[in-house]
Amino acid sequence: MVKSIDDYYDIVGPQIIAEIHKKARKLYGKHIVHINSTFQGGGVAEMLLSLIPLMNDINVTTGWRVLHGNPDFYTITKKFHNGLQGEDFNFSDIKQQLYLETNEDFSQITHLDHDCVIIHDPQPLPIIKFFKKQQPWIWRCHVDLTSPHQELWEFLKHFIVRYDHMIVSNEQYKKEDIPIPQHIICPAIDPLDPKNKEIDSELIDYTLEKFEIPNDKPIITQVSRFDKWKDPINVLKIFKNIKKKIDCRLVLCGSLASDDPEGVLIYEQVKEAAGNMLENKDVILTTVENDILVNAIQSQSSVIIQKSLREGFGLTITEALWKSKPVVASKVGGVPIQITNGKDGFLFDPMDLKGFENKIIELIEHPDLAVKIGKNARDKVKKNFLITRQIVNYLDLLDEFINN
Amino acid sequence: MVKSIDDYYDIVGPQIIAEIHKKARKLYGKHIVHINSTFQGGGVAEMLLSLIPLMNDINVTTGWRVLHGNPDFYTITKKFHNGLQGEDFNFSDIKQQLYLETNEDFSQITHLDHDCVIIHDPQPLPIIKFFKKQQPWIWRCHVDLTSPHQELWEFLKHFIVRYDHMIVSNEQYKKEDIPIPQHIICPAIDPLDPKNKEIDSELIDYTLEKFEIPNDKPIITQVSRFDKWKDPINVLKIFKNIKKKIDCRLVLCGSLASDDPEGVLIYEQVKEAAGNMLENKDVILTTVENDILVNAIQSQSSVIIQKSLREGFGLTITEALWKSKPVVASKVGGVPIQITNGKDGFLFDPMDLKGFENKIIELIEHPDLAVKIGKNARDKVKKNFLITRQIVNYLDLLDEFINN
Repeated sequence: MVKSIDDYYDIVGPQIIAEIHKKARKLYGKHIVHINSTFQGGGVAEMLLSLIPLMNDINVTTGWRVLHGNPDFYTITKKFHNGLQGEDFNFSDIKQQLYLETNEDFSQITHLDHDCVIIHDPQPLPIIKFFKKQQPWIWRCHVDLTSPHQELWEFLKHFIVRYDHMIVSNEQYKKEDIPIPQHIICPAIDPLDPKNKEIDSELIDYTLEKFEIPNDKPIITQVSRFDKWKDPINVLKIFKNIKKKIDCRLVLCGSLASDDPEGVLIYEQVKEAAGNMLENKDVILTTVENDILVNAIQSQSSVIIQKSLREGFGLTITEALWKSKPVVASKVGGVPIQITNGKDGFLFDPMDLKGFENKIIELIEHPDLAVKIGKNARDKVKKNFLITRQIVNYLDLLDEFINN
Repeated sequence: MVKSIDDYYDIVGPQIIAEIHKKARKLYGKHIVHINSTFQGGGVAEMLLSLIPLMNDINVTTGWRVLHGNPDFYTITKKFHNGLQGEDFNFSDIKQQLYLETNEDFSQITHLDHDCVIIHDPQPLPIIKFFKKQQPWIWRCHVDLTSPHQELWEFLKHFIVRYDHMIVSNEQYKKEDIPIPQHIICPAIDPLDPKNKEIDSELIDYTLEKFEIPNDKPIITQVSRFDKWKDPINVLKIFKNIKKKIDCRLVLCGSLASDDPEGVLIYEQVKEAAGNMLENKDVILTTVENDILVNAIQSQSSVIIQKSLREGFGLTITEALWKSKPVVASKVGGVPIQITNGKDGFLFDPMDLKGFENKIIELIEHPDLAVKIGKNARDKVKKNFLITRQIVNYLDLLDEFINN
């Protein structure tokens, strides 16, 4: 079904919808294009899949091009992505070369006569070098830039400075050494996405039964890739202690891409650490890629935990908050933007396992507290982290970029 | 490296390169766009990956858009694809609906102000319905249309008649019940593609050793997906008989997509049928997706067999002919377009196993015959089935579509 802004009227109210239409008027007749490197998989593609049709629905003509590379290219740019987040790797000439060549190849078959070009993340960043630039170009970086691999960063800066503007996801990611204007757009979720739309208890029950997740006891859930930065082993430790005091279950729900050998490794480690708790389903690991399943698990959970060691923003937290769930999360990266401790969720130092444990127990034992926190959580997301707010941000910035 | 027509000068000679530049002049300032449904995998994507950069190199501005669908969409359109080739399936309303919805969604984010729109294969066919058409639209069908699933065909015809022209791969695929002009463009290979470029014996030896394919005996090869239409079980039967008379090896080389359960099944059947011939490598099955490996295997083979029960055109045959190999193939579909029996290859009824057997033995026993046939084979491809000839075809048709 073709996406329309009308579908959001009942969720966000007439005022914001009218505001969106008003801001869109300034951009009638303009043509914008977004370029990223995948249609499917990952938060950026998901966001574009919602944003771009809605922009067209409000008559801001917006296209989407996907940079295509061979498997080596994606391996390299994954290393770049992790490198921007501070991981070390061998930044070799051959990697730089394939990175640039793929961008140059793509530029040969891509023709940009748009009024504004928006490039997402590092994969297509250098493409700007291969065009006769004749419009504002924006680099939209979704990555945590607080401590990038230095050599990589110096290399990428050569392309970044060709851009007219840069957009990052929060204040901390602004870089002092980038002499172009930097703006902030917070990530957002689409409340009508299968992962986030309201589903009734019948569908929840049906889905959980289908995937063999019993809901006879309180469920604690972490939704995250199997990744060392998500610290699943310590989530297990916390759960073991909770389990001594309250009868409940832990669900670790994460996708497992076959092209991610590290993910498979972590998954195996978690499986081993969970041991016989898997047999009676005290601990449930699920790697099924099914949005309704994720939705059902989050909706059914008593508490959501997000024990990340690093977190750019944490869209899985946003999803849980939107479902009025109490979230107990690490105070890292962009998480405090979403959660005000004690008001709409709880924050702990990632090493404070006891803090996580006690708060989760308190929330399960005091459903009234869980409800109160969950209500505030939903309000926070409604006001700040829905796709409609993101559309407003983009409209404001596009007006600034194109019309000023 | 950015593709350039200059790189083909030494292969096809100055005359055809000059012809290409001359024909391109008529299209200066025009903007063409191709739309298909995947960047990677399959002959169509491969062809576009060569064609589109080369068109831009000769200053015929040509773009490429890829229709994006969810996994269900690809499952459905695969059934449509097989249905067009005559396979039966349940042509349900829900399939039609998702097919149309995906095309409508894509149309919402795609803006076509080009001088000509070329749509490849059935996946994006109905997108034409969702545009205010203002230029010639071409449907380029790469599929064997001789006996399509009737109900599906009637459904697709509603969209086909909206097009200005249709292009098929050979005379037999033209349809009497389609009242729009129909043209023919034969498939072609790119001689500079890693799968087809000339590689020296050192690289061949290195590659075969790396993938543990011994080259101490004559090799008979079939390169094909593990698919019932490629009849691998009968290839094994033929080989068993040959093996009684000549000491040689059989290589079955085909990719095995994890999303193709039928392929996995066929592969298992072949494995079982090969039995202990696998142990001493009399029969070698390889499913590695590596273009240089395919190139090395073809280059090292004494005879190439293509025992298809159906074959739209058979690009794997073209690849073998281009490597000056004697090909023994089924006389089905588009194969006779490529092979003139006894001159540049050999054709047999697909049920004539004895014919295949005897000819392969003859070719291994008489290398002089193999060399003579192989030389003619390469000439045939050079004249008819290289990407440069396809560029000439496209330039001629585009001139007709746009300028007349």
